[in-house]
Amino acid sequence: MMRYSSSPQNQMRPQHAGVNRLGGTHAAGQNRQKRSFQTGRTPIIKKPAEAPSFARFRTQDTKLRVAVIGGLEEVGRNCTMFEYGEDIILVDMGLQFPEEDMPGIDYIIPNMGYLKGKEKHIRGVIITHGHYDHIGGIPHLIPKIGYPPIYALPMTNSIIKKRQEDFRDVGQFSINNVKLTDKLQLGSFEVEFFHVNHNIPDSMGIVIRTPEGTVIHTGDWKFDYQPVGEPPADLQRIAKIGDQGVLALMSDSTNAMMPGHQTSETEIGVNLENLIQKAPGRIIIGAFSSLLSRIKMLIEMSEKHGKVVALGGFSMKSNVEIAKELGYMKFNPKILIDMQQVDKYPPNKVVIICTGAQGEKNATLMRIATGEHRDIKLVPGDTVVFSSSVVPGNERTVQRLKDTLFRKGAEVIHHEMMDVHAGGHAKADEVKLMLTLLKPKYFIPQHGNHFMLRLNGKVAASMGIPKENIFIADNGQVMEFKNGMGVLTKEKLPSDHVFVDGLGVSDETNIVLRDRQVLAEDGMVVIIATVDSKTGKLIQNPDIISRGFVFLKEHKELIEDLRHRVKKMVTDSDPLSWADTNGIKNKLRDYVGQFLFSKTEKRPMILPVVIEV
Amino acid sequence: MMRYSSSPQNQMRPQHAGVNRLGGTHAAGQNRQKRSFQTGRTPIIKKPAEAPSFARFRTQDTKLRVAVIGGLEEVGRNCTMFEYGEDIILVDMGLQFPEEDMPGIDYIIPNMGYLKGKEKHIRGVIITHGHYDHIGGIPHLIPKIGYPPIYALPMTNSIIKKRQEDFRDVGQFSINNVKLTDKLQLGSFEVEFFHVNHNIPDSMGIVIRTPEGTVIHTGDWKFDYQPVGEPPADLQRIAKIGDQGVLALMSDSTNAMMPGHQTSETEIGVNLENLIQKAPGRIIIGAFSSLLSRIKMLIEMSEKHGKVVALGGFSMKSNVEIAKELGYMKFNPKILIDMQQVDKYPPNKVVIICTGAQGEKNATLMRIATGEHRDIKLVPGDTVVFSSSVVPGNERTVQRLKDTLFRKGAEVIHHEMMDVHAGGHAKADEVKLMLTLLKPKYFIPQHGNHFMLRLNGKVAASMGIPKENIFIADNGQVMEFKNGMGVLTKEKLPSDHVFVDGLGVSDETNIVLRDRQVLAEDGMVVIIATVDSKTGKLIQNPDIISRGFVFLKEHKELIEDLRHRVKKMVTDSDPLSWADTNGIKNKLRDYVGQFLFSKTEKRPMILPVVIEV
Repeated sequence: MMRYSSSPQNQMRPQHAGVNRLGGTHAAGQNRQKRSFQTGRTPIIKKPAEAPSFARFRTQDTKLRVAVIGGLEEVGRNCTMFEYGEDIILVDMGLQFPEEDMPGIDYIIPNMGYLKGKEKHIRGVIITHGHYDHIGGIPHLIPKIGYPPIYALPMTNSIIKKRQEDFRDVGQFSINNVKLTDKLQLGSFEVEFFHVNHNIPDSMGIVIRTPEGTVIHTGDWKFDYQPVGEPPADLQRIAKIGDQGVLALMSDSTNAMMPGHQTSETEIGVNLENLIQKAPGRIIIGAFSSLLSRIKMLIEMSEKHGKVVALGGFSMKSNVEIAKELGYMKFNPKILIDMQQVDKYPPNKVVIICTGAQGEKNATLMRIATGEHRDIKLVPGDTVVFSSSVVPGNERTVQRLKDTLFRKGAEVIHHEMMDVHAGGHAKADEVKLMLTLLKPKYFIPQHGNHFMLRLNGKVAASMGIPKENIFIADNGQVMEFKNGMGVLTKEKLPSDHVFVDGLGVSDETNIVLRDRQVLAEDGMVVIIATVDSKTGKLIQNPDIISRGFVFLKEHKELIEDLRHRVKKMVTDSDPLSWADTNGIKNKLRDYVGQFLFSKTEKRPMILPVVIEV
Repeated sequence: MMRYSSSPQNQMRPQHAGVNRLGGTHAAGQNRQKRSFQTGRTPIIKKPAEAPSFARFRTQDTKLRVAVIGGLEEVGRNCTMFEYGEDIILVDMGLQFPEEDMPGIDYIIPNMGYLKGKEKHIRGVIITHGHYDHIGGIPHLIPKIGYPPIYALPMTNSIIKKRQEDFRDVGQFSINNVKLTDKLQLGSFEVEFFHVNHNIPDSMGIVIRTPEGTVIHTGDWKFDYQPVGEPPADLQRIAKIGDQGVLALMSDSTNAMMPGHQTSETEIGVNLENLIQKAPGRIIIGAFSSLLSRIKMLIEMSEKHGKVVALGGFSMKSNVEIAKELGYMKFNPKILIDMQQVDKYPPNKVVIICTGAQGEKNATLMRIATGEHRDIKLVPGDTVVFSSSVVPGNERTVQRLKDTLFRKGAEVIHHEMMDVHAGGHAKADEVKLMLTLLKPKYFIPQHGNHFMLRLNGKVAASMGIPKENIFIADNGQVMEFKNGMGVLTKEKLPSDHVFVDGLGVSDETNIVLRDRQVLAEDGMVVIIATVDSKTGKLIQNPDIISRGFVFLKEHKELIEDLRHRVKKMVTDSDPLSWADTNGIKNKLRDYVGQFLFSKTEKRPMILPVVIEV
C-alpha cells in the first residue's frame, strides 16, 4: 500500500480512520503502511479465492443501489456510486468544463451531498483511466469524503499524483496501484478489472461483483484490433465474464449514436507517418496531452524518420515523462529537445507536439499562432496538424485558430481533410459486440448527454434487450437491484452543479453566474443619490455610472434625461419615505429599468445606491 | 421600375437624386415611375445589343477596383464592391450573427465607410439570393448610401420587401425584379445573371462585364443535377460565359475544403419521404426558414402522403406565403392548417415544419421542446427531425435541445444518424467543374473564414491556376485590374465591425463590448467613498457593491477586509490630493484590483466613485 506523501504536513486526519474499517476479510488497507508508492512495486491487494461467496454479506432486505452522480447529463464530471448496506464504492471522480453560459467558472465537479455523514462507509474509489473528466474532481472531493483510498492502474495513478502537486494543501491520501489480474475486496463488493482500448494507456473496465449480482462499468472504451503500444481489448476475458452472468452493463455512450466501428489508431498512424515523413519544413502537431497513445505513436514515428521532437505544454511534457518512466513509451531520450533548441535543427528534421488544438487560450499552439510563443515563430513551410476532434462548443474558436495559422503562412491539416484523428469511444457496432460478449440483463447507458444515452439505449434495444431493462437515468437517480430484478427508482441523490473557480469550491455560485449573464448581455447602470439624512432632500445631482450598456459618448442625451428624471423622482417623493432605503431603492430600480428599456430595448442591471450624509 | 412604398411617409429624399444619375444608355432608372412593384411584372430593364462596347467608358488611367467589404473573414455580412471611375456597383448586403464574445449584439453589418461621399456613384445593388447573410444589411445600410436601386430575382425581392415591413421608418427605395436573361447597364458596368443551385429558389451568379474584362461573382452555389423544384445550374450558359473569356472568378468557399460533390436535394428527399410516410405519430421537422427548397419538398411530400402541414415560425410562414404566391410552391392550400388545429387530426396525419433547429431561443422548435408552445405539447410517438446542419458555435445549444426533446418522449432524427440535410455550398469537385467551365485568369475565393478561402484557393491551385493569380484577400482589401493584369493591393477600405443592437447601428460598440466581456468574466465591484468637499475627510464607511464577482454571503470577511483597507487608504492619504478626484480614483482602482486579485485570482471591473458633499 502506498501513501501519497507530497503534502508538507504529514498529519493523520481523523477521517483516515474511515478507510481502515473495511468490511470483509481481504481489506485493502490491512498492511497499508508497509510500502511506499515510490518503489512502483505490486500493491498489497491479495487475490481472493476464485469463487467469491457473498453469502456472509447478503441480507434479506439490503438492495444494491447504483447512482451515477455525474456523467448522465453531460460529457464530464463522471462519478458513479455503488452502495450495498454500509458499503459504498465510487468509480471515477471527474471534472466537467463549463458551458458557455458559465463565464468565469473553471470547471464543475460531482456533487458529494449524499455521502455527507457516510464517509465511513466509503471503501474505495476506483478510477478507470487518467483523463480529467475521470480524475479531475479528486483533489477537491477526496477531502470532503474522508480521504478514501484510490485504486487504479499505474499510468492513471501517476497522472493523479502529478496533478496533486498543484494541490499540496489537500494533504496526503492513499493511492494504490492495481494490476489487471487483481481482485479487490471492498466491503461486500468484489472488484475485478479488464483491459479496454481508449486513447490513453491503462484504460480499464470494471467488474463489480455484489451480493445481488455482477455489474460491469466499462469506463471509456473502444475495441481497437490494431491499437498502438498496447494489446487489443481483452475480448476473451470479457467473454468469460459474460459467461459467468452479468446483471447490468453500464456503458460509454459518447459515440454510440454513430454507425460502424471506430477507426483504429494504426490507420490514423499511416496518414500521420506520411505527413511526418514528407513535411517540407517543421511539422507542428496539436493534440490533447491526454491522447497519450497518439503522442507515443508520433514520438516513435519521428524517431524512425530521424527527426527530433519538442514538446509544448506543461501537461504534454509531464504526461510523456510519466509514460516514459512507466515504460509505456520507448524512444531514445536524445530525440527529445527543448523548444529553445528547435532553431538549431534543419526545419524538416523538427516535429513539435503540443497542446492547444481546441484553441485553448494559453496553450502552446494558440501562443504559436498568435506569435506570443517565445521560441517558435511560424514561417511558410511549417505544417500544422490538428490531430484531435473538436469538442462541441469549441468550433468557432478552432476556426479562428485555423484562420490565424493560415495567415502566418502555415499549411494546416485537419480531420475534415484527412483522417488524422480517431475517437476514443465505441461506435454502434462495438456496442453491439460488447453486448454480444457480456449478455447483460440490464443495460445502463452512461457517459454522455441525455440524447446520447437514449441513442445508446436504442442500440441495446436493437440487440434484443427489453426496453424496460434499459435504464436511461438522470444524474443522481437511484437504480436498485434485488433478487436479479432491477428498478429505476424516482429517488434522486444530490447532483446539482458544484463549481470550482478562483476562490475554490462552491455550490452557491449560481447566483453569481446569473448576475454575470445579465451583466454580459446588457451591462449595468449605477444610480447614486446622495441625500441629507435628516431632511431626506437630494444634496446634489444624482451620479450615474454605466458600463457595458451603451456607448456613452453617443448617448449623452439619454444619460442627461435619465439624471433629470431620477432627480425629479427623488425630489418629488415624500422625504420621509427615504427612511425606507430599500423601498426607495426598489422604486428607483423599477423606474430606471423601465425608462431605459423603453428607450433602448435593453435591460441593464440597475444598481441604485442611496448615500445619506 | 417599381418603388417600394410600404413607408407611411412618401417624402422624396435628396439622396434619391443619386440613383437617377446612372451612366450609360441603358440606365435602369429611365422609366422608374411607370410601374409599381405590386404588379409583379417584368421590370423595365432593356436588353442591350449582344456585344457590348466598353470603348466609350475606357480611359487610359482608370482601373477596375474590386473589394469585398464583408464575407472574407467570416460566413456572413457579405458585400462586394466594384468600382470603375465614377461608377460603383455593390453585390449583396448581408448580416452576420455575432460571435460568442459579443454579448448583447443583434448582428453585424458591412462597413460602408468608403462609400461616404460617393453615394452618387453607386449605380445599383445586386442581390444574389434571399438569405439574410446576403440581404440582412439592406434596411440599415441603404439609407446611409443614398438609396441606390436594388436588383434581384423575384423571390429575393419578395423576401427583402417582407423584411422591410419591420423597418418602416427606413423609407422607400427602389427594388427591381430582373430575369435571368436580362442585362443591366449600370454606369460602365454591364451585368448579366446565370442560374445556380443553392437551397433557396432564385439563387444566381453574376457576370460583371467591365471595361477591363469580365468578373464572375458566383453568389452561394452548388451544382445539383437533381434539384427540387428548379432546373440544375445552367452549365451550358456558364460554359458559354467561360468561352467568352473570364478575367476573374469570385467563388463561394464555405464547403470547398470538403472532398467530393454536395449531396443532391433529391437524395435527401428519399430519406425524408420515408420518414414522413412511416411516422407512427406526428412528425416535426426543424429547418431554417430560408431552406425554401427543402420546405417546398416537405410540403409536397406531405400532400402526396395525405398529410396536413402546420408551419411554425413567422419567417417560415411568410417565406412559404411568398414562394406560393410566386408559383415556386404548388400544393393544395387546404393541406396547410393552423397550429391550433393540429389536435383535430390523427397524429400520423400531421406534419409540422418549423424554425428552431439551431436551438434559437424563441423559435418554434425550442418552444415546443421546453413546453412553452401554446398549441403543441410533445408526446411519445412524436418524431422530431433536424433537417439542417449545425451552424458552428451552436453545437452545445443543439445538443441541449436534443436532450430536452428526448426527455419529452420524442424520437429524434438528426444528420449524424441519417442523411436528412444537404448543404447548399459547392464542395471541391464542384469548384473544379466551375473552374473547368469558366477558365478564369484570376481566382478570388470569397464567402468564408480565412482558412476556408485558403483551402478553396488550394483547389484552384490544384487545377493549374498559378499561385500568384489566386487572391486571398481580407475584408476591404482592394484588388485592381488593368489591361488584363490583376494586383492584390495593400489598400484597405474600412471594414471594421458595424454592430446592430437594440439602439440601432454603431461602429463604436467595441468599447461597450469589451466592458461586457470583463463584466461577464469576473463581475464588478463598486467602491463609493463619501468625503467632505472642504476637508477631503472620509465622512462615513465606504460603500461596497458587487455583482457577478463572488457569492457575498460566503465571503463576508473578504468584503469587510476590503472596506477596512479602503477606509484606511482614504484616511491615510493626503486630504489635499482629493482635489484630484481622477487621481484618487485611479489609485483606488489599482489598489482594490490588486488586493482582490491576490485574494481571489479574479479581476472584476473596479468602479471607484468619490462623492464630495
